[in-house]
Amino acid sequence: MAATSQETPTPDYSQGVAFVNGEFVPIADAKISVLDWGVVRSDCTYDVVHVWKNRFFRLDHHLDRFQRSVAKLRLQLPFDRETLEATLHKCVSMSGLEDAYVSMTCTRGRPAKGVRDPRLAKNNFYCFAVPFVWLATMEQQDVGAHMHISSIPRIPAESVDPTIKNYHWIDMEMSLFEAYENDANFVVLKDRDGNITEGPGYNVFALHNGKWITPDHGVLEGVTRQTVLDLCNELNVTAAPEKMTVEDLRSADEILVTSTAGGVMPVTKLNGRKIGDGTPGPATTRLRQLYWAKHADPAWSKPVRRDI
Amino acid sequence: MAATSQETPTPDYSQGVAFVNGEFVPIADAKISVLDWGVVRSDCTYDVVHVWKNRFFRLDHHLDRFQRSVAKLRLQLPFDRETLEATLHKCVSMSGLEDAYVSMTCTRGRPAKGVRDPRLAKNNFYCFAVPFVWLATMEQQDVGAHMHISSIPRIPAESVDPTIKNYHWIDMEMSLFEAYENDANFVVLKDRDGNITEGPGYNVFALHNGKWITPDHGVLEGVTRQTVLDLCNELNVTAAPEKMTVEDLRSADEILVTSTAGGVMPVTKLNGRKIGDGTPGPATTRLRQLYWAKHADPAWSKPVRRDI
Repeated sequence: MAATSQETPTPDYSQGVAFVNGEFVPIADAKISVLDWGVVRSDCTYDVVHVWKNRFFRLDHHLDRFQRSVAKLRLQLPFDRETLEATLHKCVSMSGLEDAYVSMTCTRGRPAKGVRDPRLAKNNFYCFAVPFVWLATMEQQDVGAHMHISSIPRIPAESVDPTIKNYHWIDMEMSLFEAYENDANFVVLKDRDGNITEGPGYNVFALHNGKWITPDHGVLEGVTRQTVLDLCNELNVTAAPEKMTVEDLRSADEILVTSTAGGVMPVTKLNGRKIGDGTPGPATTRLRQLYWAKHADPAWSKPVRRDI
Repeated sequence: MAATSQETPTPDYSQGVAFVNGEFVPIADAKISVLDWGVVRSDCTYDVVHVWKNRFFRLDHHLDRFQRSVAKLRLQLPFDRETLEATLHKCVSMSGLEDAYVSMTCTRGRPAKGVRDPRLAKNNFYCFAVPFVWLATMEQQDVGAHMHISSIPRIPAESVDPTIKNYHWIDMEMSLFEAYENDANFVVLKDRDGNITEGPGYNVFALHNGKWITPDHGVLEGVTRQTVLDLCNELNVTAAPEKMTVEDLRSADEILVTSTAGGVMPVTKLNGRKIGDGTPGPATTRLRQLYWAKHADPAWSKPVRRDI
């Protein structure tokens, strides 16, 4: 399995390890063909799970979603769930990382030369573990993020199903430019009816009179989003997916965003105006603390296998 | 510049040549990092020009459009137009191909580690020449293609500007599945208002009483589309971009699609029903012949440089 060539007797795995083209390689060598339809058609789906203090967090939720996404896109993985899971464990194990961002992608691959029927493509799978990614660091989270509402509408669910985690991000990228130019580092996009959807890599929650809402349509069904719903249930706090208007967001008592890349992150400014008193609110802080506490709980996490 | 390693003294360039990561390599070795935002966010633009009998066809049109796309996406190429053009010539020249499909891509690349501001990313460029690609072979074109109207709406222009040639193709890929299952090999997508837009890699034209129309909104401004408009002008045939309804397509006297990957291609069946008498019509055939004749005309094409 080792991809080390004779010229590099001691490959550097410390920056991450990938499983690509059937081999485990240092992340710096993780490359795919420029002809793969995952590149030239962005015809692929992915998922990202994280490892915190040597434990995968809610890995089954991510694998369930990934397998659903793969099926919805009419792709096929090259191996069964057990091997998929073992491959992720091995990437983390080889890297030696204790806190990791673990990504898996299945692409259309390519059909035979001259064939354009996607049903005949040989699908491709790769995955990698790299150091944990923070959309906002813990220090930034203590202060809270500044969010901008984009003028660019989110790609509609009717065109590209957002419950299939995908790389169609040009609408989000152009929105990020808009955000940075407005001194914000988070952004959220509206749908064609003007309702709130999601941001690049995160779901959004707004609190009103003790009740959290998060958009119910046109969004990825995030695992961290589900985790917040589950934590609210544990805490006897009302929380539900439903329609979220711009006014719901503007007049919120608290706002938070959820992502595997950073967890439960407070938003304290929206389009230049303070949310509440401009500091992370108590309901957000409580959820944030409980979120990290669950990372040591065997019901929510499991250890990285170092034996494979 | 040569990327040949000591283990491969005679690299095989016959299947194509790419310029990737600053080196010219056989197409089989043309790979990019799985971390490039061109992959993980499909945050990139591309263009494709073709070479026919050792001559680039309307290269300036493609380079103009590519540079416009790059600017609209707020990307920057690593070099000037002269070097860009020379790099394309060299890929073709090294490959020895007489008929080639020549693709160029500019991706967001990546910002420094931990940075998520797209303005700070180091953009990436690659290009390649491979054997000419046919969406329909000449023999298939003599018979005509079967087109299906997709039930999936095209990603709206408001979310992703289709005049920026892009790889956001999931709507088109899912439409292709639908087409193949309906015994069609071409597909066209409607916009949210139910009007005709485009298909995966091609524009559509419909003829009514001697006048060609092609959708004016929500589509790539194809170079072959413009070429058909220009050829019609030469032939004193009326042709114009305007709104195209499903009924415009269904009741057309003739239908054709345009793409760099195959030129002017007749469509003779739509959703299982014959267009006209079910064979390529005279207006389409005339345009198709003139299109290929222009490939030898110095006003429309120029020779591949073999001296660089």
